[in-house]
Amino acid sequence: MPGDQAYMYSGAARDLLTKAGAEIGDKISIRLRRGELEEQVDGILMPRIHTGQEDYLVVKLRTGYNIGIQTRNLTSIKVVGKGAEPHFTRPSLPTQRIGLPKVAILSTGGTIASKVDYRTGAVKPALDAEDLYSVVPELADLADIRPKIISSTFSENIGPQNWSALAGSIAEEIKNGADGIVIAHGTDTLGYTAAALSFALNSPPVPVVLVGSQRSSDRPSSDAAANLVASTAIASSAPFAHVVVAMHDWISDKRIAIHLGTKVRKCHTSRRDAFESVNTSPLGYYDLVRNTIEMKSTSFSKRRSDSNWTIRPKFDSNVVLIKFYPGMSGAIIDWAVASGQSGIIIEGSGLGHISEAMFPAIERAINSEVVVAMTSQCIWGTVHMDVYSTGRDLLRMGVIPLGDMLPETALVKLMWVFGNTSSRHDAKSMMTKNLAGEFSDRRLLEKTHDD
Amino acid sequence: MPGDQAYMYSGAARDLLTKAGAEIGDKISIRLRRGELEEQVDGILMPRIHTGQEDYLVVKLRTGYNIGIQTRNLTSIKVVGKGAEPHFTRPSLPTQRIGLPKVAILSTGGTIASKVDYRTGAVKPALDAEDLYSVVPELADLADIRPKIISSTFSENIGPQNWSALAGSIAEEIKNGADGIVIAHGTDTLGYTAAALSFALNSPPVPVVLVGSQRSSDRPSSDAAANLVASTAIASSAPFAHVVVAMHDWISDKRIAIHLGTKVRKCHTSRRDAFESVNTSPLGYYDLVRNTIEMKSTSFSKRRSDSNWTIRPKFDSNVVLIKFYPGMSGAIIDWAVASGQSGIIIEGSGLGHISEAMFPAIERAINSEVVVAMTSQCIWGTVHMDVYSTGRDLLRMGVIPLGDMLPETALVKLMWVFGNTSSRHDAKSMMTKNLAGEFSDRRLLEKTHDD
Repeated sequence: MPGDQAYMYSGAARDLLTKAGAEIGDKISIRLRRGELEEQVDGILMPRIHTGQEDYLVVKLRTGYNIGIQTRNLTSIKVVGKGAEPHFTRPSLPTQRIGLPKVAILSTGGTIASKVDYRTGAVKPALDAEDLYSVVPELADLADIRPKIISSTFSENIGPQNWSALAGSIAEEIKNGADGIVIAHGTDTLGYTAAALSFALNSPPVPVVLVGSQRSSDRPSSDAAANLVASTAIASSAPFAHVVVAMHDWISDKRIAIHLGTKVRKCHTSRRDAFESVNTSPLGYYDLVRNTIEMKSTSFSKRRSDSNWTIRPKFDSNVVLIKFYPGMSGAIIDWAVASGQSGIIIEGSGLGHISEAMFPAIERAINSEVVVAMTSQCIWGTVHMDVYSTGRDLLRMGVIPLGDMLPETALVKLMWVFGNTSSRHDAKSMMTKNLAGEFSDRRLLEKTHDD
Repeated sequence: MPGDQAYMYSGAARDLLTKAGAEIGDKISIRLRRGELEEQVDGILMPRIHTGQEDYLVVKLRTGYNIGIQTRNLTSIKVVGKGAEPHFTRPSLPTQRIGLPKVAILSTGGTIASKVDYRTGAVKPALDAEDLYSVVPELADLADIRPKIISSTFSENIGPQNWSALAGSIAEEIKNGADGIVIAHGTDTLGYTAAALSFALNSPPVPVVLVGSQRSSDRPSSDAAANLVASTAIASSAPFAHVVVAMHDWISDKRIAIHLGTKVRKCHTSRRDAFESVNTSPLGYYDLVRNTIEMKSTSFSKRRSDSNWTIRPKFDSNVVLIKFYPGMSGAIIDWAVASGQSGIIIEGSGLGHISEAMFPAIERAINSEVVVAMTSQCIWGTVHMDVYSTGRDLLRMGVIPLGDMLPETALVKLMWVFGNTSSRHDAKSMMTKNLAGEFSDRRLLEKTHDD
């Protein structure tokens, strides 16, 4: 690492470090001023990040995450320990403590498993599971880690075929004794995969925690380490046995939200707290300061040992999601039917509506034995198709109202349903049954309404 | 009205009213207890609402909105004035005050212009503009009102052809001297119409305020009256000349948010505060208690008189919005091209991605001179297609990144662009220009990020 120009500090930052005798990898104690306040920051001096900005230092905190400190705020730098390993070299794996719960970390790719390509300035999926592990040696205190690379795929390329394989890998790890599973996954379609596993894993006996990162691990604002620590701790010791997503609850590194896999959605392109539980509260939180899990709901399935547990990993990808918009014609519905789709999830407007102009095509689809179900593009709230005549007309045609189920979850569920039955009748009844928390508890739902 | 069973009180409510000698239409003063607090409510006793609940009274407050009061909370009822007009009879129009600004209220239908059909229990668009006006006689204090019925249409049936006609009607009212316009509109596609008018009205000289209602005017929790009062006041006296949406800022009746027409979205199926400004703050608020407009932004276009102003009301509906999902194939893109679409707006994942499996179809579309542009299904945030190789590949193919423009606004804008040019080159350049605030001010955008 020393000698690699990309990682060397320059300008004011280099002068300060030289004066203090601090080198990359040293444990340092920094005092800095922010407005009226003076603060102390202790951590390991990290390599410089090549972002065009030269006036800050990167420090890795004890909690496992990196912060950037502007040199103009610095009062002093003191070296308190020499020669910790620099960030991106591969240390030997930490000595594993005996008796800790076993957690399998399955890496599928994405930002959480990536680093910046310094030639292009762009991010590529590159780190393997061991890299990932070595970035956060603290994981060794939380669990007996079993890292495994499943793939190195941007999550926009992950689909039904990958969900089946992933469910199989998870089942294998659990049968081999894993007390919890962490899935490192790109954030783009992490919500879809979480929903898919929620159905495919068919009430897993241990927690399955999907985790991603909105900022790659070599950026000072990275959420990768904090999210990995939290997801490993949750997989290791949470009391529940559900498929969940663990991501920042807010922009600070204090708390990680635990979202139920069927109720979570990526609601911001770049914020670290992009993931939100929709129409419900998170199942709980992981407190990164106190290292504790705080459950928000008492109605969860508990961990169990279950030798009879089997997965239902099949998906039929012949299902489409169609978002309604003004001026839309029925032609797209006719296309879906002609192209052999088994089901159509509509993101209607408001309480579950589409224009009358589309009614004939909807009738043709249902007459062709295609399952047509309704969600709302509002995202929050629930479809109510008995309030207005538009909704009642659609119900009469046989459109299935899906309550407050997320459109994305509805799509994935219908793919899974048709992976398990070819009966249109069974498909309809499975779609309206609450199999993995995809319909909100009515009391929780009402809290998000205002009447 | 008296004698109409549907409006008569029964049970405990009737007993209390009989004892007090109170009849529907009377001005009453009620004392009630909520927890430790005792409150006084003054207003007009309204007809009973047929909802199956019998234990509450409906009182119309001086501010123009109705509240429901549970009989078990009542301490006393006193009649302070007899025989005000009951709610749903049609009073003679209030005497208009002289010298007030002229506001045209154009009614297109929707819940704000509807009442419950007591036979079916469902809501139908029914009230004409004068009904609407008579429900809130306070409007006469705010402006010289000119009500007009444009249509009586559920907003899911409003599309490009209606937008053109509506823009024409608005222009006519403004040319005839209107100082502001209110458009009563169903909430389902209100955001789309607001975006459409933002482009079609081509910098209007006065405020154009779209307003809807999430609860019909004969429900105790109705937001219709409050929203109408606020939108009329905004059209009458706001300092800006933009197309905006005025809806509840929160569930209380205290404040109405003023959203820019290109940045607003219905984000809840049923809450009164369902509309949100995305990636920006509301332009301002209307305070229903103090009857004042509070601007949040200083960078708005001011009202002006402009004899040269012309509208650009044409839309080309041969544009589709396609939401990406895992497992989606390129077939839907090929269908869009084959069906003669001029443009495709994609709701990609995250920063603006789709799966590699769709790349060949995207290339075929662009080679066929179809404009393909990218937004994000996250809704919040902005596409950034130079971060990951997926985005860069799509940029190289010629996909147009649309920053933080809402997918719905992007669809409407592309329809409008092709209504104004058939040149693919001009269309691309118009799509990336900020014509009506559809791209956030960069500083505002950064406030919603966390780095």
